[in-house]
Amino acid sequence: MSEPVYINSASNKKIKHLSELLRKSRARHEAGCFVGEGRHLFDEVPRERLIAVYVSHTFYEQESALIDELSCPCYAVDDVLFDRISDTKTPQGILSVVEIDRPNQKALTDKEAPLLLVLDQISDPGNMGTIIRTGEAAGVDAIILSPGCADPYQPKVVRSAMGALYRVPIIATGKTDTLIQRLNRLQTDGIWLYGTDPKDARSYDEPDYTRGTAFVIGNESHGVSDELLRRCDESVSIPMQGQVESLNAAIAAAVLLFEAARQRRA
Amino acid sequence: MSEPVYINSASNKKIKHLSELLRKSRARHEAGCFVGEGRHLFDEVPRERLIAVYVSHTFYEQESALIDELSCPCYAVDDVLFDRISDTKTPQGILSVVEIDRPNQKALTDKEAPLLLVLDQISDPGNMGTIIRTGEAAGVDAIILSPGCADPYQPKVVRSAMGALYRVPIIATGKTDTLIQRLNRLQTDGIWLYGTDPKDARSYDEPDYTRGTAFVIGNESHGVSDELLRRCDESVSIPMQGQVESLNAAIAAAVLLFEAARQRRA
Repeated sequence: MSEPVYINSASNKKIKHLSELLRKSRARHEAGCFVGEGRHLFDEVPRERLIAVYVSHTFYEQESALIDELSCPCYAVDDVLFDRISDTKTPQGILSVVEIDRPNQKALTDKEAPLLLVLDQISDPGNMGTIIRTGEAAGVDAIILSPGCADPYQPKVVRSAMGALYRVPIIATGKTDTLIQRLNRLQTDGIWLYGTDPKDARSYDEPDYTRGTAFVIGNESHGVSDELLRRCDESVSIPMQGQVESLNAAIAAAVLLFEAARQRRA
Repeated sequence: MSEPVYINSASNKKIKHLSELLRKSRARHEAGCFVGEGRHLFDEVPRERLIAVYVSHTFYEQESALIDELSCPCYAVDDVLFDRISDTKTPQGILSVVEIDRPNQKALTDKEAPLLLVLDQISDPGNMGTIIRTGEAAGVDAIILSPGCADPYQPKVVRSAMGALYRVPIIATGKTDTLIQRLNRLQTDGIWLYGTDPKDARSYDEPDYTRGTAFVIGNESHGVSDELLRRCDESVSIPMQGQVESLNAAIAAAVLLFEAARQRRA
């Protein structure tokens, strides 16, 4: 690959597009790509999904060999302009534009006993990123998002997922009907759908999660919506001591998923 | 109790002290108190530890009955001044000054099989707050902090702990020697100290946590320090799939603590 194209103007079309990809959910979904900031998120991108790379002049001077060997378009951006576009306080000088993976549901249930996570209106991006990263570590096969969830491709989620977003299949649903259809299909395929409900539910460590399992995790303040809870095969709760009213959504997801992982190892 | 004292000046001594309690760790430790912001953290304060309450004029007008029945000093602060002092973007109009609880170690090990958490250089305040809240839910008897941990009484920790900070005994240690002494004492008292180490350790779900148990949780980037790890009775690891390098510290703490809680329920 040849040297990068130099960009020094904020009115450059590429720069405007990059800035929109960082700031607007609609731009990401129309273009089918999102942006990973920093060196770690560049190193972890599967190379076939790397659409373009933007580096600061300074970064390019220091790492030209790394950039010149890339087979995707690369742009070297004026340092001040780069810092202005970046979503972080201390930019590392590299932004990767990455193709959004669109997994199909069939592929997920082809696995013998898939482990799935359904997020219901998880709106905090840091929480969502942590859940995606925790999900990968616990071995989830995919994460399904309800309408009202944070956009998983926004910079804060991408950052806190720390690369897991490149690897965990994410299925976002735009309407409740679509979500319900997908859940119905999972149930038809023999996957057991567990809601999480603090009231009167069976303790989470009692069911057998070695068969196809999907956990529905609700929003921290409101829990799983009644509509979803009604459609679950069963509800489980995490017994709590003290006076804590609810667990953080990422913590609840971790406790359930690692219990499933524990049973599946045994 | 009579009506509150009205304060309209930023140079008022009480206001300066309150502002220092919110902003400076040293001020909190010298005064032996910290500040809980908002209605929820006011409602949850054990009344015998409530030292003073500051409300905005507007809050007082709406909730005078609530404030007038308090038996601690109460101050009604000009709205603009109140907003300026507050640590949150959308202040709820009430700040509670709360006595710091100083638990002694003996009381902790008096319990038959205590469940303890040792935090090693957990510097992110949001993470620390989540750990304290998760700890209460899982039934920890106390949390011991190494030097280099975030100040547990800073506003961000207080906020994310959501009241658990009023109930979970916290033992902060200022020097590594003091921490080591405390851990030695725990071990003498028969408490088994588990380090968490990603390399070659036994899976976390194998040991018996129904006896006295203390988990040492390390900093997310560096893990548990070698010095502490050497002093642990045993190390455990959380088996991970995918390419995740480490779990978030709060997630790791949750997985270990709820495994202990599960065993203790059985």
